[in-house]
Amino acid sequence: MKVNLMHGAGGEVMGELLQTLTKFSHNNAGGIGLESLDDGAVIPINGTNIVFTTDSHVVRPLFFPGGDIGRISVCGTVNDLTMMGGRPVALSCGMVIEEGFDVADLARIVASMDEALGEAGACLVTGDTKVVERGSLDGIVINTAGIGVAKTVVRDNGLVPGDVIIVSGTLGDHGIAIMAHREGFDLGEQIHSDVAPLWGMMEGVLAAGTIHAMKDPTRGGFASAINEMAKKSRVQVRIEEDRIPLRRSVKSAAGMLGIDPLEVANEGKVVMGVPAADADAILAALHSHKYGKDAAVVGRVVAGSHVIMETAIGGERFIEPPMGDPVPRVC
Amino acid sequence: MKVNLMHGAGGEVMGELLQTLTKFSHNNAGGIGLESLDDGAVIPINGTNIVFTTDSHVVRPLFFPGGDIGRISVCGTVNDLTMMGGRPVALSCGMVIEEGFDVADLARIVASMDEALGEAGACLVTGDTKVVERGSLDGIVINTAGIGVAKTVVRDNGLVPGDVIIVSGTLGDHGIAIMAHREGFDLGEQIHSDVAPLWGMMEGVLAAGTIHAMKDPTRGGFASAINEMAKKSRVQVRIEEDRIPLRRSVKSAAGMLGIDPLEVANEGKVVMGVPAADADAILAALHSHKYGKDAAVVGRVVAGSHVIMETAIGGERFIEPPMGDPVPRVC
Repeated sequence: MKVNLMHGAGGEVMGELLQTLTKFSHNNAGGIGLESLDDGAVIPINGTNIVFTTDSHVVRPLFFPGGDIGRISVCGTVNDLTMMGGRPVALSCGMVIEEGFDVADLARIVASMDEALGEAGACLVTGDTKVVERGSLDGIVINTAGIGVAKTVVRDNGLVPGDVIIVSGTLGDHGIAIMAHREGFDLGEQIHSDVAPLWGMMEGVLAAGTIHAMKDPTRGGFASAINEMAKKSRVQVRIEEDRIPLRRSVKSAAGMLGIDPLEVANEGKVVMGVPAADADAILAALHSHKYGKDAAVVGRVVAGSHVIMETAIGGERFIEPPMGDPVPRVC
Repeated sequence: MKVNLMHGAGGEVMGELLQTLTKFSHNNAGGIGLESLDDGAVIPINGTNIVFTTDSHVVRPLFFPGGDIGRISVCGTVNDLTMMGGRPVALSCGMVIEEGFDVADLARIVASMDEALGEAGACLVTGDTKVVERGSLDGIVINTAGIGVAKTVVRDNGLVPGDVIIVSGTLGDHGIAIMAHREGFDLGEQIHSDVAPLWGMMEGVLAAGTIHAMKDPTRGGFASAINEMAKKSRVQVRIEEDRIPLRRSVKSAAGMLGIDPLEVANEGKVVMGVPAADADAILAALHSHKYGKDAAVVGRVVAGSHVIMETAIGGERFIEPPMGDPVPRVC
C-alpha cells in the first residue's frame, strides 16, 4: 500500500494510516497518551499535569490573507495545548529548509512566530534546523512541539446528554481563505484566515464555568471535530443549522468552490460542550474577547449516536466526518 | 541572501542563519532557553527541571548499516535530553510524508522507533502526520521533540582547568558509515552507524561521579562539539591524537573519502569533561556498558583558549570547528 493524499486529511481515511502509525507499544507515560488521539498528551510529573503536543506545518502559500506559516506554526501548537486545558509555557521549533530559500522570507516567518508567541504568553526555548538540497523539498516545513501546564485537564470525550454545544465564532474562515486565495477569487470583501492563539480567551472561559469537552476544529473542520467528540463520548449531538455562525463572504466563496465550510479547517476556533446551566456565563466570557465575539450556542447533546443537523427548513440529515480534506496543505 | 547547504551544517556557517533564527524576544521560560544554544532547554516547573528538545531528521538513505531514520529520530532526541542530565520521559513525533511513500517502509520505521523507545525507557505520547503531493518532498521528514526530567542539570559550558576529557567510544562511525554506504564502498569489514540511545549508559555514569560539561558530537562531529565546549567554557582543551579511539575500518574509509573522521557525526557517543579525581570511576561506569566499552581519556583542560591537538609525532595543531559538513543529510 502507498500513502496517498487522502491519508493526510483530518477525515476517516486517516484511520488506515493511523493503524500503522500508532503501533507503538511504548505509548503512554502514565497519563493521556497516543492511544487517546486527543489534541495532546498529558504526563503527570511530580504532581503537575504537563501537557505535550506537536504539529508539522506545510501550508501553501507561505503567506496568505490573515497569516503565514509562522503564525500558524505557533498557534496550532498553542491551541492544542489550550484544548487540553493547558497554559502554554514553552515551544520547540524544528525547521527543514530547501537550499535557495530566501532569508528575508525566513526573517518574516520568524518575526510572525515571535509575535504570536508574545500574544500567547509562551516562549520558543529550543530549536533545530536542517537544510536540504534544492528540489528535495518545496521551500520549508516547520514543526513545533509545545509544553503546557493544566490545572484541570479537559478532554474531547466528555460530552453528556443535557450539554449545549458552543462554537467560539464563525466557521470555515481559514480553509476558505486559503482556497479562495489560491484560486485567485476577488470577492470584494477579502476573506481572512482566523489563525489566532486561543489561550488568552480560553483562560477566561475556563474560569467562567465547566467545560465537559472541547476541541479545535482544524483539519476536517467542524464536521470532523464534532463527530469525533460525539463518537468518543458515545452520545448524539443535534446541531441547528441556522444557529451556525458563518460569514456571508465565506458562504459565497464556499458555494463557488463547491466546498462545505463545515468541512474545512479553522485555526482560531473552539467547539465545546458545556452544562446548560453554565452556558450563559461561558458565552459571556467568550463574547468579552476579540476572538470570541461571534460565539454562539449551535446545538445540544442527547442520548444516542451520530451528529444530526436540524436544517433551516425543518428537515434532518447526518453531519458526516469528511472522507478526505477538500483543501490540502491548509496547515 | 539565500539559504545554502552550508547553513545546514553543524559548523561555523550556521552562525549566519542562526542570527535570523534566534531573533525571538520570547526565548526563555525561566531556565535555560534558546539563547544558550545548548543541546536542549530546561524549564523549571513547580520545582522540577523539565528538559525539552527537538530535532528534525532528513537522513538518506532511510535505511543504512546499523540503523534507519526511525532509530535516529528517537536516539537524537533521547540523547539531547540525556546530555542535559535529563531522564527521557516522553517523545512527540511529527511526520511529513510524500504521497506514494510505501506503507511497508513506514511500518519498518515505526517498529524501529518503538524498539529504540523501549531501550531508552521513554514513550511516544503524541504525534501529527501530514501528507504532501508527489514531488514536493523526497520521501519523509521526521521530527521528534522530547521531555525529560533532570535531577542535576548538566551544561556544555562547565569545563574548568584540571578536568580531563573523556569520549565514550570510537569516533566518526555514523558519518563514515553513511558516506561509505552511499559511495558503495566494500571494505571487507562492514562499517556500521553507532546510533544508540544513551540514557541507559549515562544514568550509571551520572551516578559514578561529577560531570562538568557534556555534549553529543553529532553534526560537525567531535571537532565541532569540543570547540563549542571550550569556547563556551573559556578554556583551552588539549587532545592527544594517539588516545582518540578510531576503528581501523573507519580510518581507512575516511582516508579514501578524504574526510576527517573527527568532523563527521556520531549518533551514540558522548564527549565530557570531568574532574581528574572522578575520571577512573566514570571510565569504569562507561566500560561496564555495551555502548561505552571503548571509552577513553583523550585530553585535558588548561587555562587559555582553542582546542589543540598534540600529534602522535610530537607536534601541535589546532582542531578547528568544521566550516561546513562534508556529509549532508547525515541525520
